[in-house]
This record gives sequence, C-alpha cells and structure tokens, in this order.
Amino acid sequence: MKILVLNSGSSSIKFQLFQMPSEEVICSGLVERIGLENAKISFKTARLSVEDIEDIPNHKTGLQLVASYLLHPEKGVVSVASEIDIVGHRVVHGGSTFAKTVEITSEVKEEIQKLSALAPLHNPANLQGILVSEDIFTDAKQVAVFDTAFHQTMPVKAYKYAIPNAFLEENDIRVYGFHGTSHKYVSEKAIEFLDKQNAKVITIHLGNGCSMTAVKDGKSIDHTLGFAPMNGLIMGTRSGDIDPAVIFYMVNSLGYSLDEVNSLLQKESGMLGLTGYSDLRDIESEAEKGNADCKEALAMNAYRIKKFIGSYAAVLNGLDSIVFTAGIGENSDLMRKLVCEELECIGIELDEEKNKIRSKEIRDISMNTSKVKILIIPTNEELEIAKQSFQLVS
Amino acid sequence: MKILVLNSGSSSIKFQLFQMPSEEVICSGLVERIGLENAKISFKTARLSVEDIEDIPNHKTGLQLVASYLLHPEKGVVSVASEIDIVGHRVVHGGSTFAKTVEITSEVKEEIQKLSALAPLHNPANLQGILVSEDIFTDAKQVAVFDTAFHQTMPVKAYKYAIPNAFLEENDIRVYGFHGTSHKYVSEKAIEFLDKQNAKVITIHLGNGCSMTAVKDGKSIDHTLGFAPMNGLIMGTRSGDIDPAVIFYMVNSLGYSLDEVNSLLQKESGMLGLTGYSDLRDIESEAEKGNADCKEALAMNAYRIKKFIGSYAAVLNGLDSIVFTAGIGENSDLMRKLVCEELECIGIELDEEKNKIRSKEIRDISMNTSKVKILIIPTNEELEIAKQSFQLVS
Repeated sequence: MKILVLNSGSSSIKFQLFQMPSEEVICSGLVERIGLENAKISFKTARLSVEDIEDIPNHKTGLQLVASYLLHPEKGVVSVASEIDIVGHRVVHGGSTFAKTVEITSEVKEEIQKLSALAPLHNPANLQGILVSEDIFTDAKQVAVFDTAFHQTMPVKAYKYAIPNAFLEENDIRVYGFHGTSHKYVSEKAIEFLDKQNAKVITIHLGNGCSMTAVKDGKSIDHTLGFAPMNGLIMGTRSGDIDPAVIFYMVNSLGYSLDEVNSLLQKESGMLGLTGYSDLRDIESEAEKGNADCKEALAMNAYRIKKFIGSYAAVLNGLDSIVFTAGIGENSDLMRKLVCEELECIGIELDEEKNKIRSKEIRDISMNTSKVKILIIPTNEELEIAKQSFQLVS
Repeated sequence: MKILVLNSGSSSIKFQLFQMPSEEVICSGLVERIGLENAKISFKTARLSVEDIEDIPNHKTGLQLVASYLLHPEKGVVSVASEIDIVGHRVVHGGSTFAKTVEITSEVKEEIQKLSALAPLHNPANLQGILVSEDIFTDAKQVAVFDTAFHQTMPVKAYKYAIPNAFLEENDIRVYGFHGTSHKYVSEKAIEFLDKQNAKVITIHLGNGCSMTAVKDGKSIDHTLGFAPMNGLIMGTRSGDIDPAVIFYMVNSLGYSLDEVNSLLQKESGMLGLTGYSDLRDIESEAEKGNADCKEALAMNAYRIKKFIGSYAAVLNGLDSIVFTAGIGENSDLMRKLVCEELECIGIELDEEKNKIRSKEIRDISMNTSKVKILIIPTNEELEIAKQSFQLVS
C-alpha cells in the first residue's frame, strides 16, 4: 500500500511517499514559496535528487506539480495516480472534536474549517491541501491526522483554565496541546524500548517549537503548550510562559498596541530576544566564545525544561524515562547536559560520554545507575501520519 | 521598645502595636472604608474590644484616629505618642532597589513613589500611610518592609522573562514575587523547627492571594507570582497561570476590551469563575453536597500546587519540607490532603489524622515514614515587620 503524506502550510507543501507497512520511503520533497517569486520544488528518491524553480501561483498548481513528479516517466515513482492508496494530511487543530485520526468526509472538512478560528495560520492551509488533493488523487482515501489529537486524553484538571466556565463551554478556550504526532510517536517508541506498557514518560520535543508531554499508560496527561502554540518552554522566537500582567503593562504603561505585543511575544522573543540569535547552534557557539547573554539564555532555557520535568514527575507520581527529540533535542548534547544536571533527586543521571555520541538511532544516554532512563529518540511525524493512516484504513 | 506596624491600603489602615523583643501584642485594629460612608475603626487590647463608626474622609484623619485610640486616657495603651519608638510600614513593591528592610528617608520615599508604576494599587496607599505617620509620630523612626524584598535573591534564570533584554534593562519587567514577608517568616520558622540551616523548603501561602516559594539556605530561589500578583496558583478571583494567547483571542476574536480581560482575569476568575464562590469554605461545603464544579475546582487548585511542588523539588534537587500557611493553608485540611496525595515519589506522605487536628501552633502533619516533613506554620506578617524593624534599628 502506498501512502502519500502531505503537510500543507500557508506557502509550502511538504510531501513524503511511503510503502506501507514496510515503512520504506519511496520519495520525499518540498514545494516552497507558493504564490511568491522564485517558487521551487525539491524532489528526492533513492536514485535522484532534483530542485527546480517553477511558477507556482497556488496550492493547486503546487500539488499538480508534485503529482507530475511522482508520475514522471523517467524520474517518477508511480505509473498511475491511482497507485496512491491513501493521502494522509497533517492538520494542526482538531479542537475537542477530533481525538483520533479520521477519514475525511464533508463533515470533517466543515469542522476543520470551523476550527480555523482557533488556528487561523494553519487550518486554512491544511484544508486547502485536502481540497486540492481530493481533486488530484481522486481514487485515494483522504485521511486527516491532527496535531492536537494525542492530547485529548488530558484530564479536566490539566486542560481547563481558571476562568469563568462559559469560556470553555461556549468559546472552547482550554489547553489543546500541539506537536501531538511527534509526542505520540516518540512516547510509543520509548515504551517499546523500555518494554514497559505502563511506563511513566516525559517527552521533550525541542525544535522550532518546543513542548513537553507527561505520558502515562501511553496517553498524554499533561502538556506545556496551551490554547495556542506560544506558552510553556522558551522557543526560538517565542517567549513561552510569561505573567499575563506583562501584556497589560506593555499596552497600558509602555504604549504598545496589543498586536505589537502579540507579535513581540511570538516573533521577537525567546532565544532571539535574549541573545539576538534564534538558531541554537549559533547561540551555543557564541556562548562558548564567552557571550554572556547566550550563556544566560541557555541556562534559562534548560531551567524552564527542568521545572517541567519536576512538575510532570510529580503528577505522574514517579518517572521511568525522559525522552529528547526533534532538532535540538536530538542534536544538542549541551542542552541535554544543562537540562539533566543536578536532577539526581528525581533519579536522572546523565552519562556525559554517551551524551556526546552522535547517531540517528534510538539510544539510552543515562548512567547504568540512573533510575530514570534518558533516551534520545529521533522523531518522524511523516512516518507517524503514514502509520496512523494505514492503521485507520486497514 | 514599642513598634507600631502599619499596613496602609487604598481605603484601610491595619495596625498592630508590639512590645519588642518580647513580641507581645499590645493592641491591634483596623480602620475601614476611608473616604466612604460608614467608615469605622476597630480597636482591640488585652482588656477591651471596641468598634466605632466614624467620619474618616482620608488617611490622615484615619491615622489621627488610631493615635487618639492608642493615647486614650481610659482605653489607650500609651501615655504619649513618643513612647512609640518605631513605625514599621508594609510596602508592597520594592522593585529591584530594595532587597532589605530600610529606614525611610526622602530618597526612599521618592523611590517608593517611582515604583508606583509597577504597583499602582498598592504603593501610593503605602506611601500615604508613611507621610501621615511621619506627621503624627514625629519622634518615631519610620521603617519600610517590602513584600518583594525576600525574593531579590532569586537567580537571573528564575526572574528573567524570555523577551527582548531591553524590557528588563529599561522597563524593569521581570519576576518580582510577592507575599515575601510571609514566605520569609514561615521559612525561617521551618528551618528552626527542622533544626537544619540548609534545609530545602517549599512554602505554600494560600490566602486571598496564593503563592509558593522555593527556599534554599534560607533564601528565595524561585516563586510563583511574577511581575504582578496575578499568575501562578489559582486564587479566589484571580486566574493564576494562563496561556497569553487566551488574552489575544478574547480581544481579537471575542470582542472584549483589554481592560475587560484584565478585570476578568483578576476579579472574576480563579475559584469564583469556576464555581460562583470565592470563599474556599463555601466551595468545600458545596463540593461535599455534590456540586461538580466545586469538586473540579478544588481538584484543579490542588493539581496546580502539586505541579509547583514537583517543579521546585527539581530545582532544589531535593526537598526537606513543604510548609502550608495563611488562611487556607492553615485551616483547610481538605486542600492539604488533595495537594499531598499521590506524591509519594517526592517523599511526601501525609498523616490524615494529624492533618485534621486544628491548632494555632506549628505542627508536623506528615507520617513518621515521610521523607519530606509536611508542616503547618501560622504566618504573621505583622510580627515579621515588627521583628525586621527591631533588628534594623537595634
């Protein structure tokens, strides 16, 4: 069975074609700068890797282009479009409606449209991808995999805010949580690796966005991101947690508009605001050269992660493993070291030598004496979407 | 030495007269509804307790009234005003300037005035109390004790927000922390009770406002309240922590004004927003009768406290004691039980029988096997102000 995974953003389409259940990647690629000058497509198979500048005015042209590459007589990987059995779509916001992966019907599309109110930057682009895909891959089953779905198992005490009840009941204001596909994927891998179904696990996703999930019996029971993906951990350009009073003060006493504050907290804060750099590799190399702001920002970032580890260990009432994943989590041994040091009280003991070894494999970097296993598990959201789509249809 | 402690609010003056160093309370009282109809004064000594409706247009009249009660030939407790050696004033915001209790000079008053920008509801009223007190108790030393001072030992990683550095450097936006006088008082009592100078302690102040402090070597190293006293724990009418995205959504999508949202989060949220009641005793009795909202709100409240216990145990890298204090902390055995249950992983084991015993004394309510001592320590901010004033002047 062939499954095409699509992640349709506002000006891009990321795609990957899987052979399932073998999980073989047949091809992958990216359409970028849709509707802009110098739009391009990159396309990679086992045999070749190409990149072409094309005129791509909209998502329809973009996805038609993807199809033409997939079907290309020489470069292509399928001979007819109907060879693609399923198209699995990443959809950011599933609200409280979608706790699971679903086959896309007109009701599902309507609901995704409605949920655009909660994710105005993402859901409309995701829906656009679905509509165009239905037109092009007419024989394929269309499936939606939601970023929020994994967190729908959170208990009320974890997802409800202490504001008047009507805001939850009428306006759907609550913690939704994000990066669910990644947290689900790595927490399942961790449970398998530990060979313990009821393992108490904290997954730490550190990438462009950053978040953590407390996982019990394979289910998300708490999570750092809330109503939107801006709070919790310190991110590349996002502040993470901040006293709401700061927002009122910036507007009422410093004269910023509310939109300016919103943009400031999302685009100019986090590691960028603290250091002038948003890429952690730059910050680490500057810190090594003695840049005090960079050192301090790394310490703040790790400190915030530490606090959530403690917090989740408490609500799990115990801890078997912490899992580092995504770009920074998988690749920054410095950040992992800063997070793990001085947490012996929780049973976390990092093996600094193992921590430094680079690899693409799942690995345990804790000391043999460490009660809590410290794991690095490379995330793979595309594969998770393919797996869930496959399971749904099979 | 006689020390008068004054807590001057926007429409009230709370006062207490101490004999120091014996800590004997000579008298105490409250002036209420200053500038409003039916203003009144209550006054209590060892011999009598009176309450009078008076015409009290301003703080000056209010404090003159206090003085006339103190000096009253029959009811009074001192024969001349100059018997009062020190007036110790509670001041809410000491910013980053005041890490300690200070004798009040014109520079100090200027600085308290400046800091009104950060505490517009409190500092002007505190300053008003100081000015009037200087006029009336001309022979006394005037001393300022700041709510924020105890938290000035927090490290940068705990007090800095992940926003552009300029907001800290130019606008003083950072975590200040509040209820410091209470956290200092009870943490010192705990260290004394445990007979361990370097004890790792978490103090949990649950009153009208609620906050927690991580204390190491007698110093505050982290705290739940931030720039203003509205975030962190769920309070009577304040939301505590909430994703900032909710504020932007309420304004941009639900049509609230920013002032309405501010007022909503401060005055209509917390336990009141969740249950319709702001007094915990009502909520507990409703929960017992089966009210689902009340049960859920109690669970949410305790869950949030649990998360901070875990968080602070992690950054302390160990834990000797948690301390419950203030109205709810000292009196609600239910809240203490909800907080402590299922925290064995941290070494917290509550003795449910000891937990139910009512007393005004410091007491240990943990099981003999509990690694972490669970203490109840009645707070006494007035006494702490008297003690600090006494120490400063002695």
